[in-house]
Amino acid sequence: MTATTTPAGGLDALGRRCLAEAHGFVRERAAEHFAGRSEGALAVTAVPEFVAGGKCLRPLFAYAGWRCGQPDSDAAVRAAAALELLHCFALVQDDVMDGSELRRGRPALHVRFARWHEEQGWAGSAARFGESAATLFGDLFLVWSEQLLRESGLAPDRLARGWPHYDAMRAELAVGQLADLVNDARALPSWDTLLDVLRRKSGNYTVRRPLEFGAALAGCGPELTAGLSEFGGLVGEAFQFRDDLLGVFGDPAVTGKPAGQDLRDRKASSVVVLAAAMADRRQQTDFAELIGLPAVGDEAVGRWRELIVATGARDRLGELIRERADKALAAIDPAVVPQPAADLLAALAARCTDRDR
Amino acid sequence: MTATTTPAGGLDALGRRCLAEAHGFVRERAAEHFAGRSEGALAVTAVPEFVAGGKCLRPLFAYAGWRCGQPDSDAAVRAAAALELLHCFALVQDDVMDGSELRRGRPALHVRFARWHEEQGWAGSAARFGESAATLFGDLFLVWSEQLLRESGLAPDRLARGWPHYDAMRAELAVGQLADLVNDARALPSWDTLLDVLRRKSGNYTVRRPLEFGAALAGCGPELTAGLSEFGGLVGEAFQFRDDLLGVFGDPAVTGKPAGQDLRDRKASSVVVLAAAMADRRQQTDFAELIGLPAVGDEAVGRWRELIVATGARDRLGELIRERADKALAAIDPAVVPQPAADLLAALAARCTDRDR
Repeated sequence: MTATTTPAGGLDALGRRCLAEAHGFVRERAAEHFAGRSEGALAVTAVPEFVAGGKCLRPLFAYAGWRCGQPDSDAAVRAAAALELLHCFALVQDDVMDGSELRRGRPALHVRFARWHEEQGWAGSAARFGESAATLFGDLFLVWSEQLLRESGLAPDRLARGWPHYDAMRAELAVGQLADLVNDARALPSWDTLLDVLRRKSGNYTVRRPLEFGAALAGCGPELTAGLSEFGGLVGEAFQFRDDLLGVFGDPAVTGKPAGQDLRDRKASSVVVLAAAMADRRQQTDFAELIGLPAVGDEAVGRWRELIVATGARDRLGELIRERADKALAAIDPAVVPQPAADLLAALAARCTDRDR
Repeated sequence: MTATTTPAGGLDALGRRCLAEAHGFVRERAAEHFAGRSEGALAVTAVPEFVAGGKCLRPLFAYAGWRCGQPDSDAAVRAAAALELLHCFALVQDDVMDGSELRRGRPALHVRFARWHEEQGWAGSAARFGESAATLFGDLFLVWSEQLLRESGLAPDRLARGWPHYDAMRAELAVGQLADLVNDARALPSWDTLLDVLRRKSGNYTVRRPLEFGAALAGCGPELTAGLSEFGGLVGEAFQFRDDLLGVFGDPAVTGKPAGQDLRDRKASSVVVLAAAMADRRQQTDFAELIGLPAVGDEAVGRWRELIVATGARDRLGELIRERADKALAAIDPAVVPQPAADLLAALAARCTDRDR
């Protein structure tokens, strides 16, 4: 497969199509359930707004999988968009569980609902209300995702091929989040353990599963799907490595999160685990000191960054990303993957591995 | 319709069939996702156990709806059992939101997972872990419910008639819970407001919607369904009134909850709201004093109970339950409802309105 790709503009237009379906569906559902109710006044606007901020990465991969076997289709765009609502479910509830205050540069949904509770002057804990409300909207995103897929307009026999992949994705999401809750509470994992968790959770969830789901809906055969699975596994890992680099070195203006958020959260991300594995004796001492800090502020973020760069982990992770991206593109066989789909896949691989947010 | 009914033993056997389907499905899913994982060690047993404690009231109503139009069917039992998993989702997440420590006489799921976290000696907040884990298992119950229904074995065209009712139930559950969160934080509602919330949430959810769902799967016509809807609305209200009486006067050995739990939770339940409406001037003073107490302990529960009895609200609510039960039975037209289904409905109405737990 050559490096010539769908122009980024094409990907953006497709992403907007997916987002329009997801957003439109949620706007209608939110109006149906919450319009005219005092307790639903914020939900009518805030819940669709949350969807509107998405990048539709998972729908784009699902749609690329679809295009490996079928022509352009509005019904397939709707089916793919269901994955964006599944992602909204995961984000909203993860933010509650992790106590994350910011999402996409704005207050997280539970924070918005907590503030609103305060503004209403209601009795009881505003923080508790915010968390409960966000959990409920997460539940609704989960319900709406399945409903959008079922009502996408794809024929029942097509859908029947997609459900097992969709069910696996939903289950893996919860199972992976449970592993994450426990991981957070443990010591730094080994590089191998980390790769295992990463493959099961983010890697599969973001790239590989959506691709396989889309290919299944399109009725693609085993040979083509095997190539997509390999591509997806590699791009998924590269995506997560890049995400972890951004969690340490990313620009707040671009990521929408405070600088070094993952360090502040003491997240055992790939870049931290790799740095620990690559540290020499003196660096190991610095490492132990930083890990022992009671809280990670701006100054500690600066020290962490210097240490990670000094171990060579930042550069090495960049190499690992490029290696995986190259290997992924090589897994796409032009003899079995139609050109428009191959172009989409190449553009998506580039977006996942070069992206700055 | 006469009062001769399916013997309670028949209802129990049917309930066991529903529960076996729900429990078996969850046991398989839990083993599939959590067996062999250290973080899933408790989930493999505790999550199916949670299902095993259920009474399958909603599946029984759904199945009664089914039997209004179709003969006995294992696939229909599975489809009905999906509502038990939906109920598990609601219970688990409601207990987290309400901070309820007990469920069915045992520690709530979030409490079990919090204690387990402590026993493992893991770092981080055990309470927080328990809540997050329970929320995730709630999510999985929501997913598994839909999956059990989809994979019940009912033909796609039958399922297609049931989905709108199922979707409405799921959405109403979340919407009703949001209203509840806000209600808890407000002053005592009026009797009319309370009836409105009660109809929208528990009443519809427990009886009417499951009946309509089952009847839709069975392909019942509008006349029959209208009768079921009327029956369901009335029995649902009576069920909730009875539940509220038990929340104030129920025996802990039977309810599985501390005596006067609703009073301790300051729940504005039907019996409290009715007592407020029926109180004379002197009783209103006592009422205000009890409402103003900083905490409701054993002694206050005793005083609350005396006051409620003295206003006449306990007896009046008993009359309202009987009125609704009688009116509900009259809504079942023997000319359109087949005898086995009518027997089931009568037995269920009796169970909902005379039950002591």
